[in-house]
Amino acid sequence: MTPAELAATIDHTILKPEAMAKDVDKVATEALEYKFASVCISPPYVQQVAQKLAGSGVKTCTVIGFPNGTHTPTIKAIEATSTVKHGADEIDIVSFLPNLLALNFEAARDELMEIVRAARAVRNDVVIKVIVESAALVSINKDRAEETIALACRAVRESGCDFIKTSTGFHPAGGAGLEVVGWMKKYGGAAIKVKASGGIRDYATAMKMIEAGADRLGVSASVAIVNEAKTGVAATKPAGGY
Amino acid sequence: MTPAELAATIDHTILKPEAMAKDVDKVATEALEYKFASVCISPPYVQQVAQKLAGSGVKTCTVIGFPNGTHTPTIKAIEATSTVKHGADEIDIVSFLPNLLALNFEAARDELMEIVRAARAVRNDVVIKVIVESAALVSINKDRAEETIALACRAVRESGCDFIKTSTGFHPAGGAGLEVVGWMKKYGGAAIKVKASGGIRDYATAMKMIEAGADRLGVSASVAIVNEAKTGVAATKPAGGY
Repeated sequence: MTPAELAATIDHTILKPEAMAKDVDKVATEALEYKFASVCISPPYVQQVAQKLAGSGVKTCTVIGFPNGTHTPTIKAIEATSTVKHGADEIDIVSFLPNLLALNFEAARDELMEIVRAARAVRNDVVIKVIVESAALVSINKDRAEETIALACRAVRESGCDFIKTSTGFHPAGGAGLEVVGWMKKYGGAAIKVKASGGIRDYATAMKMIEAGADRLGVSASVAIVNEAKTGVAATKPAGGY
Repeated sequence: MTPAELAATIDHTILKPEAMAKDVDKVATEALEYKFASVCISPPYVQQVAQKLAGSGVKTCTVIGFPNGTHTPTIKAIEATSTVKHGADEIDIVSFLPNLLALNFEAARDELMEIVRAARAVRNDVVIKVIVESAALVSINKDRAEETIALACRAVRESGCDFIKTSTGFHPAGGAGLEVVGWMKKYGGAAIKVKASGGIRDYATAMKMIEAGADRLGVSASVAIVNEAKTGVAATKPAGGY
């Protein structure tokens, strides 16, 4: 995989609640230079980023019900339609975790379908990813971990979403794990793709996630990772954040 | 202050994203027994809790734009009206931090006013608290920390809200600090009250917050704290969580 191919798998991400407009602008500038897949920002910054990226091929990605997922399906649906109207090409929805933890397939699928129908009514080709906070799921449901991830994959698939995504990067249970990425590939099948996110801060980890089956990476340390892919030299300090 | 008076200052809180309906029900049962001021839960649980608490005098409290505050003012306003219609007596809104960090008073006030007008149009006497994630504000704006808190107090006051609240309990910068609570008391004046939250896990800390000026406490370890007030004996293990 060339550095350019690696860059094209990365959603260049800034989601911390204290991110200012100038921080977001810097991330968008980097994305244009490195040709990342997208810039992933909070809803209040969607218009700013969509205007800057217009015509570049770099997509505008945002997050819905982020990071805890603890909003009603209707509020998430309204946030989804609103951000798509404001210019989001891709939306990453945080699932309501209790549905998944209880292995309640219908509730998990129905929540997603309400949001998906609303978003696709605005724009049919919006790319939809579903964050399932997998490290929390497998640590809490530790005796039924694989079953829980399989059920999450089925809910994502049957609701017509495009990706299952491992993590928000904000949960204390942690981010992407290689075993979980493998399960997502196995149970998602050909119908959905896998986005690994949370704790991917260097080139070696990024490549391991791709080898485990990730199609997309959610990363803040994107510039350092692609520079390491180009030069073989790691950044002197590990990059912080998401 | 008697144990009963202390209990009446506490919003008994369960906001972790993996909280299940049965966990929320247990917290509501405890609130009825101990006569806490309110039960503070995520929006999807408002109807369940409001039904259980009906007629008890214990209020139903929920959170808006929680925990990062990174939603547009309009989405927060819709979430506020929706939760009040579902039975919330009190709503704790997370402010969009960049407005406060930039010392942009008009933007901070205007965001709150949009939400307040919407919520009070549904129910005029809804109690509104504004979370400003004060530990993040003072660590990032360290050279203008007191000025930042003063500006936040003014935005809360001039938008007609009832409380300024220190913390979500989810930000890595930390929870309530005694100095910040004192500043909130000083700059909030008689017009607004202060809710201290985040990291209050024992009786001694709770009492220090009240002595510093807190009118309300957001706590998960509420039962342990009130039991310690009654018996003088601390719980054997410090309670985890918010």
